[in-house]
Amino acid sequence: KAINSVEQFLIAKHLLYWTVIIVPVSVIIGLLVALFLWLLELATETRWANMWLIFLLPLAGILITFLYKALGKNSDAGNNLVMDEIHKPGGGIPARMTPLILFTTVITHLFGGSAGREGTAVQMGGSISSLFAKSYKLKQEDRRILLMGGMAAGFGAVFGTPVTGAIFALEVLAIGRIKYDALIPCLIASVVADVTCSACGILHTQYSINFISSNEHLIPFIPIDVLLLLKVIIAGVLFGFTGFLFAELTRFIKDKSNLYFTRKWLIPVTGAILVVGISYLIGSFDYLGLGVTNPHKDGVSIVSAFSPGGAMYFSWFFKLVLTAITLGMGFKGGEVTPLFFIGATLGNTLAVLTGSPVDLFAGLGFIAVFAAATNTPLACTMMGIELFGTEHTLYFAIACFTAYYFSGNSGIYGSQRVAVNKF
Amino acid sequence: KAINSVEQFLIAKHLLYWTVIIVPVSVIIGLLVALFLWLLELATETRWANMWLIFLLPLAGILITFLYKALGKNSDAGNNLVMDEIHKPGGGIPARMTPLILFTTVITHLFGGSAGREGTAVQMGGSISSLFAKSYKLKQEDRRILLMGGMAAGFGAVFGTPVTGAIFALEVLAIGRIKYDALIPCLIASVVADVTCSACGILHTQYSINFISSNEHLIPFIPIDVLLLLKVIIAGVLFGFTGFLFAELTRFIKDKSNLYFTRKWLIPVTGAILVVGISYLIGSFDYLGLGVTNPHKDGVSIVSAFSPGGAMYFSWFFKLVLTAITLGMGFKGGEVTPLFFIGATLGNTLAVLTGSPVDLFAGLGFIAVFAAATNTPLACTMMGIELFGTEHTLYFAIACFTAYYFSGNSGIYGSQRVAVNKF
Repeated sequence: KAINSVEQFLIAKHLLYWTVIIVPVSVIIGLLVALFLWLLELATETRWANMWLIFLLPLAGILITFLYKALGKNSDAGNNLVMDEIHKPGGGIPARMTPLILFTTVITHLFGGSAGREGTAVQMGGSISSLFAKSYKLKQEDRRILLMGGMAAGFGAVFGTPVTGAIFALEVLAIGRIKYDALIPCLIASVVADVTCSACGILHTQYSINFISSNEHLIPFIPIDVLLLLKVIIAGVLFGFTGFLFAELTRFIKDKSNLYFTRKWLIPVTGAILVVGISYLIGSFDYLGLGVTNPHKDGVSIVSAFSPGGAMYFSWFFKLVLTAITLGMGFKGGEVTPLFFIGATLGNTLAVLTGSPVDLFAGLGFIAVFAAATNTPLACTMMGIELFGTEHTLYFAIACFTAYYFSGNSGIYGSQRVAVNKF
Repeated sequence: KAINSVEQFLIAKHLLYWTVIIVPVSVIIGLLVALFLWLLELATETRWANMWLIFLLPLAGILITFLYKALGKNSDAGNNLVMDEIHKPGGGIPARMTPLILFTTVITHLFGGSAGREGTAVQMGGSISSLFAKSYKLKQEDRRILLMGGMAAGFGAVFGTPVTGAIFALEVLAIGRIKYDALIPCLIASVVADVTCSACGILHTQYSINFISSNEHLIPFIPIDVLLLLKVIIAGVLFGFTGFLFAELTRFIKDKSNLYFTRKWLIPVTGAILVVGISYLIGSFDYLGLGVTNPHKDGVSIVSAFSPGGAMYFSWFFKLVLTAITLGMGFKGGEVTPLFFIGATLGNTLAVLTGSPVDLFAGLGFIAVFAAATNTPLACTMMGIELFGTEHTLYFAIACFTAYYFSGNSGIYGSQRVAVNKF
């Protein structure tokens, strides 16, 4: 009994210690994410207004390659470096990772590369928290927790989903297992960074699923739409395959490029030419950049995918290929927003093919392809809830869990460990 | 590459295999839970109509003790037996556990013991799935997954929260870690059992939190109600302590009873006399039975706790003591519904004391005391979402995670292992 009553004091001390440590770090990460999102919007709008900028994409690629070669140290490993340092502390995450990834991501978007945001936010979070860990002179174990907090802060702030940010940081490290050792530090970090980012005036895109399950069912007495459930499961399988395809294709392009190109600067130049060329072949620039919204009324974007007619049959495939080339051939940015795009447009297509509600399936694809490619089904279910509301929690869970299984032990993060095999 | 493409087929085979195995088990568990909930309602209403039944509580206790001694084999270990069999397969879970726990729980409720439902549902789930595992001749590892599916099915069906049921079964086994090995089997089991149970006409109590966060904030530019957030954190700490207190008191009563009473039948008789006597002392029978609703207009119940004036200052404490005596001295039933009661009424009291929204704090207490006592913060956050909607996801997570920490490495399930220390 005496030990147990002391226990609560130790816990309170532990939590206060972490609150004091992590709040300043999270405020700074939140500010940086706000700056990043503001720059990203500026870059996107500048490109929309000056489409000729995409012809400079090859030059942007050379600049990025040069910057990382000259100044990057080991920063080029990106998210994997952050995860490696959490798994097994090594040389640390260089502070320069923050300006480098911030600048090169904005450059990538300004000149029309197809990329995302969360990688940038997570890398800034990781490198800032590594800097703080050094100045705090934290011991190994605490350093690990602070790095996880940094990831959570970056992720939570960039999407405006604090609970998802915390769960993501815990879940992404290993396939098939969550450990709770950093639960509260991650939640504090994620909430503080999100609040800071919002306080700077950053608004996150609002999505909504208006579909309401009907009370008329195929089979009397069975209070669930069995047909819709089956469609969701089949869609979940396809979302899983798509996540798998994206991860494998990106890795394949990266490996082959590094193998066949002896002059490294030729990689992004070739990538840029491919991205611009393929866009001309498709006859659309909708698949460049972030893709959350589209300036043209009938352009394809994540938001448009939530309405009937908001995506073409192969929108998902175009975005998948262009993003795999962009990120596989030396440009910078995250994978998650493109994964949202791929998922939402694939969901739109599947809804049309199966006669299902478009907004529901776009939302399911949005979270499930991401769940498959990153192996984080719980974080993605929570993201569905935080973004789309609670009405369809069960479908969110079914789509994410199914997709998670069908991506196999593959994924976009090479440094993710396999804790529990999927079958 | 070749191995990877085979991987998806192995996964599909694995999932089909589990679907075929787990659907019949889950249907049966769903039917049993429906029967149980129907009997429970009958017992509760019968007691309400005939309050003199509570004077027979001592005799009911003797009957229960006798039944378990004569027929129980190792069934008396209850939930802990199910968890032990998952951790380390031993002698198996006897099939007789199902009728025994079903009958004795209904008896406990009929004669006014203060107890819950989930323990019964989980034990029926465990024993039925153990029976199936034997007849399927499953190998060790698969037997483990089927048992977890049985737990998920019982939990998901009894509360009408399928996603929570699946996460609970994965999360409850060890403190501080979730492993995903049984993710999909648990989700299938939980959904199928819940649908089956609803198909039998079982309706679950609807709760609602109408509080909407205001847009006027204490501090300009900070888009979150900092004062409310602080109140939620403080409430979370107290919910954690309360969960801890319940777990420790129940264990203390059980240990001391077994130590001091040489005639085992005297334990429930003493318990029954205490329960009835304390009810007379308090001057209220509101704390007997399940407590979800109350036949009297101004009686205290879980539902009433969501409205101002729906609980007294010490309602939570009365329920805590009566439940600890009931379950610590030989009566049968779950702990979770009483934990909901304790949490919701404590939340009501804290809301009054701190000037916070009553329905929000009742909802937070509902899930957070449960999170603390069972060490399942993620399942409880999800339960908040499944029961109360998504508006307050962040507060749900903060209350559950904080309460989880402040219960220490204590909890109501002795067979729960400590995978990761809390500090």
